[in-house]
Amino acid sequence: MPKLILIGGILDLGFMKAPLLAAEPRLDITVWPEDDGAEAEIAVCWRPPAGLLGTMPKLKLVQSIAAGVDGVLNDAGLDPALPVARIVDDSLPAAMSEFVLWSVLWFHRGLDQVVLRDRPAIIWRRPPQQAAADRRIGVLGLGEIGGRVARALSAQGFAVAGWSRTPRSLPGITGHHGPEGLDALLAESEILVNLLPLTPRTRGILGAATFAKLPRGAAVINVGRGEHLVPEDLIAALDSGHLRGAVLDVFAAEPLDPAHPLWTHPRVLVTPHMAAIASDGAVIGQIVENAWRTACGRPPLNPVERGRGY
Amino acid sequence: MPKLILIGGILDLGFMKAPLLAAEPRLDITVWPEDDGAEAEIAVCWRPPAGLLGTMPKLKLVQSIAAGVDGVLNDAGLDPALPVARIVDDSLPAAMSEFVLWSVLWFHRGLDQVVLRDRPAIIWRRPPQQAAADRRIGVLGLGEIGGRVARALSAQGFAVAGWSRTPRSLPGITGHHGPEGLDALLAESEILVNLLPLTPRTRGILGAATFAKLPRGAAVINVGRGEHLVPEDLIAALDSGHLRGAVLDVFAAEPLDPAHPLWTHPRVLVTPHMAAIASDGAVIGQIVENAWRTACGRPPLNPVERGRGY
Ligand SMILES: NC(=O)c1ccc[n+]([C@@H]2O[C@H](COP(=O)([O-])OP(=O)(O)OC[C@H]3O[C@@H](n4cnc5c(N)ncnc54)[C@H](OP(=O)(O)O)[C@@H]3O)[C@@H](O)[C@H]2O)c1
Ligand SMILES: NC(=O)c1ccc[n+]([C@@H]2O[C@H](COP(=O)([O-])OP(=O)(O)OC[C@H]3O[C@@H](n4cnc5c(N)ncnc54)[C@H](OP(=O)(O)O)[C@@H]3O)[C@@H](O)[C@H]2O)c1
Repeated sequence: MPKLILIGGILDLGFMKAPLLAAEPRLDITVWPEDDGAEAEIAVCWRPPAGLLGTMPKLKLVQSIAAGVDGVLNDAGLDPALPVARIVDDSLPAAMSEFVLWSVLWFHRGLDQVVLRDRPAIIWRRPPQQAAADRRIGVLGLGEIGGRVARALSAQGFAVAGWSRTPRSLPGITGHHGPEGLDALLAESEILVNLLPLTPRTRGILGAATFAKLPRGAAVINVGRGEHLVPEDLIAALDSGHLRGAVLDVFAAEPLDPAHPLWTHPRVLVTPHMAAIASDGAVIGQIVENAWRTACGRPPLNPVERGRGY
Repeated sequence: MPKLILIGGILDLGFMKAPLLAAEPRLDITVWPEDDGAEAEIAVCWRPPAGLLGTMPKLKLVQSIAAGVDGVLNDAGLDPALPVARIVDDSLPAAMSEFVLWSVLWFHRGLDQVVLRDRPAIIWRRPPQQAAADRRIGVLGLGEIGGRVARALSAQGFAVAGWSRTPRSLPGITGHHGPEGLDALLAESEILVNLLPLTPRTRGILGAATFAKLPRGAAVINVGRGEHLVPEDLIAALDSGHLRGAVLDVFAAEPLDPAHPLWTHPRVLVTPHMAAIASDGAVIGQIVENAWRTACGRPPLNPVERGRGY
């Protein structure tokens, strides 16, 4: 079996050693920084320290422990030919659909007015009720997770449009794609859900230019990555009255700094990067599977297309 | 056309005169108390003042403007032979399913821990994630609204059981019925949703005896009627740690008194009787239809079975 190194960073991954060995006792596992990785063939990580992977000359595979691989690919020192694998697990789109559905209903049913804004004042006022079919939702990113979220919202009766890089046709979803397709989607989105991967092209996409193209009173749900959002632009758009509110689950630095103004903004709901967590079984199982594959010289399960950046 | 009287109470119904006349100009409409109703043949009301309907000798129909008719039937002076009609409208189960789904996800995804309890302290802690299929939800009442809510929760992947007076079989829902079926449902319900009509048999059903039969840590969602709940029993069960939390949309006296302890209880979310409102079109349309039917001596649309009390 190939030598596998667990690389912490924001998250300490040492805890994965025992379950990995329980699943495959023949694995040879070390933990960075105790081991410097000079002999490591598989690096298991989420957001490894910048430049670290480039110092491990024998790597055959970089295995992300999550669906998003921006934390790995953002590392400029990474050999462009090295295979990178991510986790694709049914519990991710299922959990994400629940979280986004909750966040969409929060705005759709006016619960944002009832729970946060009105609560201290104890005001008894029914928010207006609107049929789901008349509520237009835009989903940025129609991949493994975004595609499933779009369909879950559509199954709940909402009018859903989606945006991808290449054309995607999903039943019941109005599809837009490419830079030229974005404006059309934004103009029609009362609630905008971001499920893009973080790449050089998508960084900062939730900024002033995008917000200005949304209809007045629109709401934003960011469950992609913190770096998609420009917090100052969001706060300005909320304070000017152009945007109604936001649910934010991801932040450029996590945990979000307790002094950050997003925590206390009356129209922002901050959640602790909780929208969707892959099941332990899937993470452990896919790492073990990819260790076997690497041992046999076969390509990994759930490879990332290095060329397109996600 | 029969003479129709609009009877206010908690709600002032005078505003319905114009849309009713727009839909059927031949209607002869008066408003109580300007008119005492001595000549009225159809009384349109929600919670009329106690004893009032019994003073109108020429009534042929009592028409509720909502799905629930407890406000009418609770009036002891009401002739037991008088037909009573209610509103059945697709927007009610659709809106109720949204509200209940939101409330269920609030507990299922631990958002109750994130938004209310933790928010002032700015704590970054992911709630545990559990598959919907492992989350057992009990729905009390499987009628026009409760049946649709149970199916919506089941479509979302939850493990749903329901309770009715007579046996009901709904695909994918575990059915229980009658007084003897209640204990089995309660023992299995991590989240209990009340969608019963208010009758002498269901009044106070959300009380100490029911709560004691729920598993420790269960949550309660009351979207039926305020009188289903015994608020002191709920607060005691929350404070003892037996129950986890509650979402309450309905109250015995509405608006809920600003001094009521439910408003400020840290594990109770109070909403302003907003879960589901019939569409204006359906309400006006069904009243007009029933005016025509009464004029022809035909039974009304959506009659209530007086004998069973709902
Ligand atoms: N908050 C959380 O708890 C949490 C949990 C898991 C994941 N996430 C985030 O969710 C993201 C999405 O996950 P996924 O598995 O659905 O990703 P994925 O399968 O890689 O899909 C990415 C989607 O985004 C589209 N896209 C990429 N670049 C684009 C561009 N420049 N313009 C337009 N569309 C573009 C892709 O278009 P094509 O279809 O044309 O390729 C695809 O539809 C992850 O990267 C991660 O950041 C968050
Ligand atoms: N919060 C809001 O905004 C809102 C809005 C609309 C309605 N509501 C409330 O929701 C209630 C339910 O509406 P609905 O249209 O679904 O009522 P429905 O069609 O009359 O159905 C009532 C259900 O409750 C069951 N039931 C009645 N008495 C029972 C008993 N003693 N034991 C066990 N089950 C019993 C019935 O059993 P069977 O099937 O055997 O008859 C039926 O399944 C309304 O009465 C109203 O109070 C609230």
